[in-house]
Amino acid sequence: MIAIVNIGQLITLSGSQRPRTGRELGDLAIINDAALLIEDDRIIATGPYSALKSQIPSNATIIDGNHGCVTPGFVDAHTHLVFAGNRAAEFEQRIAGATYQQIAAAGGGILRTVALTRAATEDELLAAARRHRDWMLRSGTTTLEAKSGYGLDRDTELKMLRVIRRLNEEGPVRIVPTLLAAHTVPPECKDHRADYVRFVSEELIPEVAKLGLAKYCDVFCDDHAFSAEEAHVVLTAAARNGLGLRVHAEQFRSGTSAVMASILGAATADHLEAIEDEDLFHLWAAGTQPVLLPGSVFALSRTQYPPARKMIEAGLAIVLATDFNPGSSPVPSMPFMLSLACLQMGLSPAEALTAATINAAHSLGLGAEIGSLETGKQADFVIHEFADYRELAYFIAAPLRPRVFIAGREVAV
Amino acid sequence: MIAIVNIGQLITLSGSQRPRTGRELGDLAIINDAALLIEDDRIIATGPYSALKSQIPSNATIIDGNHGCVTPGFVDAHTHLVFAGNRAAEFEQRIAGATYQQIAAAGGGILRTVALTRAATEDELLAAARRHRDWMLRSGTTTLEAKSGYGLDRDTELKMLRVIRRLNEEGPVRIVPTLLAAHTVPPECKDHRADYVRFVSEELIPEVAKLGLAKYCDVFCDDHAFSAEEAHVVLTAAARNGLGLRVHAEQFRSGTSAVMASILGAATADHLEAIEDEDLFHLWAAGTQPVLLPGSVFALSRTQYPPARKMIEAGLAIVLATDFNPGSSPVPSMPFMLSLACLQMGLSPAEALTAATINAAHSLGLGAEIGSLETGKQADFVIHEFADYRELAYFIAAPLRPRVFIAGREVAV
Repeated sequence: MIAIVNIGQLITLSGSQRPRTGRELGDLAIINDAALLIEDDRIIATGPYSALKSQIPSNATIIDGNHGCVTPGFVDAHTHLVFAGNRAAEFEQRIAGATYQQIAAAGGGILRTVALTRAATEDELLAAARRHRDWMLRSGTTTLEAKSGYGLDRDTELKMLRVIRRLNEEGPVRIVPTLLAAHTVPPECKDHRADYVRFVSEELIPEVAKLGLAKYCDVFCDDHAFSAEEAHVVLTAAARNGLGLRVHAEQFRSGTSAVMASILGAATADHLEAIEDEDLFHLWAAGTQPVLLPGSVFALSRTQYPPARKMIEAGLAIVLATDFNPGSSPVPSMPFMLSLACLQMGLSPAEALTAATINAAHSLGLGAEIGSLETGKQADFVIHEFADYRELAYFIAAPLRPRVFIAGREVAV
Repeated sequence: MIAIVNIGQLITLSGSQRPRTGRELGDLAIINDAALLIEDDRIIATGPYSALKSQIPSNATIIDGNHGCVTPGFVDAHTHLVFAGNRAAEFEQRIAGATYQQIAAAGGGILRTVALTRAATEDELLAAARRHRDWMLRSGTTTLEAKSGYGLDRDTELKMLRVIRRLNEEGPVRIVPTLLAAHTVPPECKDHRADYVRFVSEELIPEVAKLGLAKYCDVFCDDHAFSAEEAHVVLTAAARNGLGLRVHAEQFRSGTSAVMASILGAATADHLEAIEDEDLFHLWAAGTQPVLLPGSVFALSRTQYPPARKMIEAGLAIVLATDFNPGSSPVPSMPFMLSLACLQMGLSPAEALTAATINAAHSLGLGAEIGSLETGKQADFVIHEFADYRELAYFIAAPLRPRVFIAGREVAV
């Protein structure tokens, strides 16, 4: 047995069989002066130390929590983890006033990353993805979702998904794979978009499903990406092939993609900066979870954050994620997402933490396995160097050094 | 000799005898495929490796830069490093809609930190300050300015300044001390402000100067702090006693404090979010450097950043700093300041880096000693884990692990 003792504040989030909504979002089910008992990779008990100490055998491994705060590991439910190169030069151009369109016309933007990712070997991509993964791990992320989408052709999309599979198998971070072949139209297909949509729906999705390389399928539905009609074709093909659905919806323009996501029973509708109030009801009715990605609003110097408080009022089980990617959100840190969620979207630190852990786990179909600290769940948790969970959001961009545990084992970070 | 070799990009900022202005702000004097040679604590040469390799003796200690980017260590020219406790609870209240006035009326705000700091022992304060200093060091800060100002009485102000002196002597980070007794009016003097101004000017400043506990004196000049007339009394007393001047000017309201700072020949006018265009000329004429503190704008969820581009157009030698403090800027990271400067104030990554290193050094009277990588200067530098300096600002809030060197020695961070 491993016993984590001297925990000042244990954030259990217990009682989270369903994603949390409304006032439950702010209820962290905190135990003060607590202990956490682990057998193999599982939590076997949580409670006040005084109640648990008699259950700790003399040969248990004792880990001193140093009176710090212990939270579930972060679950980052929307990342573009795998890419070659970066776009720091474009970042500079954008600040100097270049528009996204100008950058794209000069060969920049997403298609630059596509070119670099196509050119990279699988091992090079794996090394890049591992570097990004390590940044996330240092910040306390223990599970993440990772998308393809910088290949836009059969071989590179499969290469990206194989990288995700290898990194997941390598461990210790659990990685949930998503096919995002419909990220944008590849340059070689710009005059025959329908062919690409057909290729993705009729060839790539069945092949990926058969190979077991993805759990979800995602589509970027917006003006410069895919129309709602095109997205509908791809997503219905994905559902037919047994993949779960996630949708990049209403980032720049309000429209029908959030409604479509809910009609198709998508697990999540992601972004939603531009969603109209009346469409929130559809998400609620379908149980589709909104994934809030404030990093991309911040990193694009935009001011329109998604309407998180209205979503909470509408009963939605919000999720918070980084959207880590080389263009619109080169931001790997979940604690920084908590800061943005509080400062820019009016979430309380408790609501933000719930959205970044148990609700995110539910959005990935893992709510029974991770995301809270309850008996029977995998022991993925973080011992922070402070005593109050609110400091996670409050000490903005601080280079903290949490101790990270996955499946009951401390991970070198 | 220590030779840093295999440097992909050496940011020297050489030729910085004066603070940089205008187009010079963007000229980093970069050497590619470089080496940096050090004897004792000094830089003895910089240049392309091919030109320097014959000067490296066989017994030199060789450090592999791993083809990364090397920059001067950050110089953080405005911090409130020393305080007890934190204000995470107030952060939560503010997000929930409480105003600064409501929080202050409930015993919160700056006076809460004053109460905790008065109650703390000198050793407790030293431990807290060391923890904050370590966060800064991890982010690459090698010199910082630290203010008193949470004492507001003789004994506690002196206690804070002794903590700063002890932490500076302990090393390795160089800390420049500033007396900020005129941070706000202490609660026990609220009905006789003039007495407090007289005490600071006629008793505390002479004592601090005599003890050599401060290099600078600072005054918070704004509606809820000290009037321009009161600030003038304090600053002229400081100048008479041989202290340099820094001023918290025009954070919330435009007025006369920036003009006063320039008339009095202050080294810096800090904040300036509300400065009027016509007052920029006064700063230019006096050589007063504006210290930009975007962290406090961000952490207060405000949108009015200081007009950095207008300052550059006006020929001012801008400085970038964290304003690290428990209320308005719980943000210790200089790389995050670079991100904010680029995204919110339109600085290029190069301009932001200059403002955060050599210009900051000049603002502290240390421009001949640190802030650039030139022969004869102290060898304070950072080896980054990436190859392009723009990634410092671009990878926002990333938990990077730079190697930090101070006075030629690698520091464990």
